[in-house]
Amino acid sequence: MQEMKPMEIERKSFEIIASELTVPLAAGTEDIVKRVIHATADFDYAENLVFSENAVKCARDAISGGCDIVTDTEMAKSGINKKILASFGGNVHCFVGNETVAREAERRGVTRSKVAMEHAAGLEKPCIFVIGNAPTALMSLLDLAEAGKVSPALVVGAPVGFVHVVESKERLLASGLPYIVARGRKGGSNVAAAIVNALVYAIRR
Amino acid sequence: MQEMKPMEIERKSFEIIASELTVPLAAGTEDIVKRVIHATADFDYAENLVFSENAVKCARDAISGGCDIVTDTEMAKSGINKKILASFGGNVHCFVGNETVAREAERRGVTRSKVAMEHAAGLEKPCIFVIGNAPTALMSLLDLAEAGKVSPALVVGAPVGFVHVVESKERLLASGLPYIVARGRKGGSNVAAAIVNALVYAIRR
Repeated sequence: MQEMKPMEIERKSFEIIASELTVPLAAGTEDIVKRVIHATADFDYAENLVFSENAVKCARDAISGGCDIVTDTEMAKSGINKKILASFGGNVHCFVGNETVAREAERRGVTRSKVAMEHAAGLEKPCIFVIGNAPTALMSLLDLAEAGKVSPALVVGAPVGFVHVVESKERLLASGLPYIVARGRKGGSNVAAAIVNALVYAIRR
Repeated sequence: MQEMKPMEIERKSFEIIASELTVPLAAGTEDIVKRVIHATADFDYAENLVFSENAVKCARDAISGGCDIVTDTEMAKSGINKKILASFGGNVHCFVGNETVAREAERRGVTRSKVAMEHAAGLEKPCIFVIGNAPTALMSLLDLAEAGKVSPALVVGAPVGFVHVVESKERLLASGLPYIVARGRKGGSNVAAAIVNALVYAIRR
């Protein structure tokens, strides 16, 4: 097997994905959906991913304007291309491992994910919130938004799992906030990072 | 919706997974398969995950003996529970972002994933190699093992994608090395980390 360069592998992969897609993708969302399929080899995302009106434009404007990104996990933060984001002036934050957050969660008897979102709500810059794991983080964010304490430029809602996950995403869909959501049980930090990277790469080009 | 503690959510999630599984799982592999399904909400892994004989015992002996772990991506490294691993004396390495590795890859005109594996092969401690993204990393590792330059305690083979991915995993299956493999196109850093965490959690208990 001959060695291919990473960019060649990626190009070839996207060709295969395009050739095997059996459902039409909404205009303007193609690169995002394909990048998620690229990250998971799971074609279910062609149907699971849903976008609020103008979500992609909202997100790209925010990123090219230098917005920051808040993730619920270190894993999602790891997967995001921070170099290109930084070229627009953006930074990625994840507060879940923060010691102040851990102590406060312990004291109040609530999850660290919840307290981490409260801390993130205090950031002064416009932010895109990216939830790839914890439905509690998404619920907490939606509580904060309803209370007028945060106004996300976009919410990427891709928590994964079996308990409260579907409900948290349906609540985001009904929230009036701009969103990109992996509907249903599926999602993950890799899915969340792939969505953000697709947005970032599209502006770089 | 009432707030549940993370451990409650996890317990309930595993109950749902057990109740929805439609295929029997091989004895001794149940917790690993269920944790991967928990991380992906994708029941395909009940059939995709394959284990070499004694793979789980090999891996647990290595971890409880204090082996280190090498990952192909920072994302897989992020997802692994390093605290519990450290309690056995183990550490997690990822060389792909290393500057020396980047320069050497550039100079030789090969992928950073390949050079990163060569660096990892120089580690003196026994290591479990965990590939969650790059088939080039897995191919490079198998070349090194064939050349007698590395002897992994276990290889977790879970690269994801459409080009060289299936072939790299089939080569691992035929290599004679102890393995846990996500067969086919699917996999990912989240899958790789979930496999390692299931191994680590089973020893902690």
